[in-house]
Amino acid sequence: MFSVGVSDHVMIAHSFADPTFGPAQKLHGATYGIEIEVRAPALNVHHVVMDIGAMRSILRGICETLDYTNLDEHPAFPGRTSTTERVAEHIANELAEAFAGLAADAKATAGASLRVLLRESPVAFASFERKL
Amino acid sequence: MFSVGVSDHVMIAHSFADPTFGPAQKLHGATYGIEIEVRAPALNVHHVVMDIGAMRSILRGICETLDYTNLDEHPAFPGRTSTTERVAEHIANELAEAFAGLAADAKATAGASLRVLLRESPVAFASFERKL
Amino acid sequence: MFSVGVSDHVMIAHSFADPTFGPAQKLHGATYGIEIEVRAPALNVHHVVMDIGAMRSILRGICETLDYTNLDEHPAFPGRTSTTERVAEHIANELAEAFAGLAADAKATAGASLRVLLRESPVAFASFERKL
Amino acid sequence: MFSVGVSDHVMIAHSFADPTFGPAQKLHGATYGIEIEVRAPALNVHHVVMDIGAMRSILRGICETLDYTNLDEHPAFPGRTSTTERVAEHIANELAEAFAGLAADAKATAGASLRVLLRESPVAFASFERKL
Amino acid sequence: MFSVGVSDHVMIAHSFADPTFGPAQKLHGATYGIEIEVRAPALNVHHVVMDIGAMRSILRGICETLDYTNLDEHPAFPGRTSTTERVAEHIANELAEAFAGLAADAKATAGASLRVLLRESPVAFASFERKL
Amino acid sequence: MFSVGVSDHVMIAHSFADPTFGPAQKLHGATYGIEIEVRAPALNVHHVVMDIGAMRSILRGICETLDYTNLDEHPAFPGRTSTTERVAEHIANELAEAFAGLAADAKATAGASLRVLLRESPVAFASFERKL
Repeated sequence: MFSVGVSDHVMIAHSFADPTFGPAQKLHGATYGIEIEVRAPALNVHHVVMDIGAMRSILRGICETLDYTNLDEHPAFPGRTSTTERVAEHIANELAEAFAGLAADAKATAGASLRVLLRESPVAFASFERKL
Repeated sequence: MFSVGVSDHVMIAHSFADPTFGPAQKLHGATYGIEIEVRAPALNVHHVVMDIGAMRSILRGICETLDYTNLDEHPAFPGRTSTTERVAEHIANELAEAFAGLAADAKATAGASLRVLLRESPVAFASFERKL
Repeated sequence: MFSVGVSDHVMIAHSFADPTFGPAQKLHGATYGIEIEVRAPALNVHHVVMDIGAMRSILRGICETLDYTNLDEHPAFPGRTSTTERVAEHIANELAEAFAGLAADAKATAGASLRVLLRESPVAFASFERKL
Repeated sequence: MFSVGVSDHVMIAHSFADPTFGPAQKLHGATYGIEIEVRAPALNVHHVVMDIGAMRSILRGICETLDYTNLDEHPAFPGRTSTTERVAEHIANELAEAFAGLAADAKATAGASLRVLLRESPVAFASFERKL
Repeated sequence: MFSVGVSDHVMIAHSFADPTFGPAQKLHGATYGIEIEVRAPALNVHHVVMDIGAMRSILRGICETLDYTNLDEHPAFPGRTSTTERVAEHIANELAEAFAGLAADAKATAGASLRVLLRESPVAFASFERKL
Repeated sequence: MFSVGVSDHVMIAHSFADPTFGPAQKLHGATYGIEIEVRAPALNVHHVVMDIGAMRSILRGICETLDYTNLDEHPAFPGRTSTTERVAEHIANELAEAFAGLAADAKATAGASLRVLLRESPVAFASFERKL
């Protein structure tokens, strides 16, 4: 099994409606360090998992839809539910859709999967993993 | 698959009885950077893997039973066998027991697993993984 | 010259009034990784720069006044001017005031200085340094 | 499941023949931070996954065959195909062969696997994983 | 004293003519993690040390003149003398020249200095510091 | 001003006699991540601050006198006073003495200084700086 990974980050504001989140019900924010990894059982014709340049620019494009925004107003997180887990899932689903549109020789081989890990602080992270 | 992770650390003394450990048979110590991760196939009712506040305070409580101690005297490591692998296994088992006692809506969903990774130096780590 | 340093972090929301900040004029947020360092020409009677336990708890107390807040509403940053540099300066001034109230044997020796460094993303930081 | 991991690094030059690599077709270089991890379902007789000293010295020996070289001239990467993925695979295969020659009580138990992860920059890595 | 810092990286090939460098006389390469910091006694009119966006794009432009090149052919390092110290000095001098051309309200205040630190491996770095 | 830095680490046991240290009066231990930096106003004849190979091997030799030991028994820390600050000072003084014995073309130029920084946990460090 091979993998390739790249990193980026976004800075967002948000708050939570659910009282379980205590002080995080107040409007605050986070820098999410984003680490994505694509795993595949074999390399493609270019001896890589997938085109790392495409991977980075697609990730950057998705980051730009989130960076410097208030997630409380984002349709992907209705009812102020933008937990780190849900943000990771959202980014993974956006990435998977964009990767599907790549040229055959830029893609990962059949059987690939994707993991998106978000570091919200030096001591906490969450991730979401799905098939491609 | 989702995951959530938090970090902490402890400072311990220990030595090894087994001659295979060479100079580490002498009394020495370590700072263990501790990274724990809970993986679950779905999020709970609060849109998270599990209650991260409970996760951090339970981990802290277990760290306090180890911090500033000599593991040679700890009943979990009879015969001076506190390898990093065994310390990771011990912490994982203590965490699993404590997580089991959490309220239903603070827990991870069925099918969750736990990984405990201990960094003993900038160039070495060990981990233990089990079901919850 | 000796120094001692400790770390913590806060999660805040803010925005900027000044058009020079471009997209950061919109409400967004940040996780600030906070690293503080006290430098002193000599050690105190306990063979340390200053009481590291006091240093950590005072830093934590100041963090709690900022964590999970919107800095746009904070009196220290009138006119939405909470640049990373200004937040570092604010934390340094709060720390200096609190350190001044410590018992003589918990303090740093005469001639000490303080640096507060805030990491706002994996690729950017700002700091402020002053005398104690 | 247990694991143990160690780190090292090498500095190499290389270039790519395949036009898909754009500017990386020119001769350039990389520092590869190398992180290897052995996973095993049980610990061996010494309460460890495998002999970490042997693991580090075997990794160092393999690093010495790559360090300060031009991978364009290395037989493992014919036609200038030394992608990070291929370098990870090469190191993993060399490690697996060397680990197989270790004494029974220095080895990992049956069912072990090996992962080699190479960090080529602060924002990119690739890995290869195989059975031992 | 205030400071602001940003990071980037480049991947280069090079070799050394001087026999003191032993195996590094052979053609090899490095990923240089680049951390630059501007220190200034006061903030400018925008409550920052200098325009961090300009700082990042100027650094990126200088990186692009080095990335994916063989420093043995670069005029700044005659006689194959591209030690990490000399590369840091070169980047600092290029940065200082570019910063001097910025608009008054994008610059650091009088009395500012610049430090360029290059990490060549997980265990080694070099830096150069000069006035602006 | 130029600098060069290298890293290493040691694992030690110790305890403190002074009641100010609370739970750290009990025997415990630490992994000290050690980062040393030599600063000099000019480069030597080899276009470097000093011989980095000598720097690393001298640091390793000093580490070997501390690694896997109980600092309570070390003559440099009488009365169980091995605070991180004192360990940094001890290592710096040992380094300075060894560097003084190097060949002229392996040394740093006149006016050089040395800093030794010890990371004792992910959230705490201490350092000592002196002239060479």
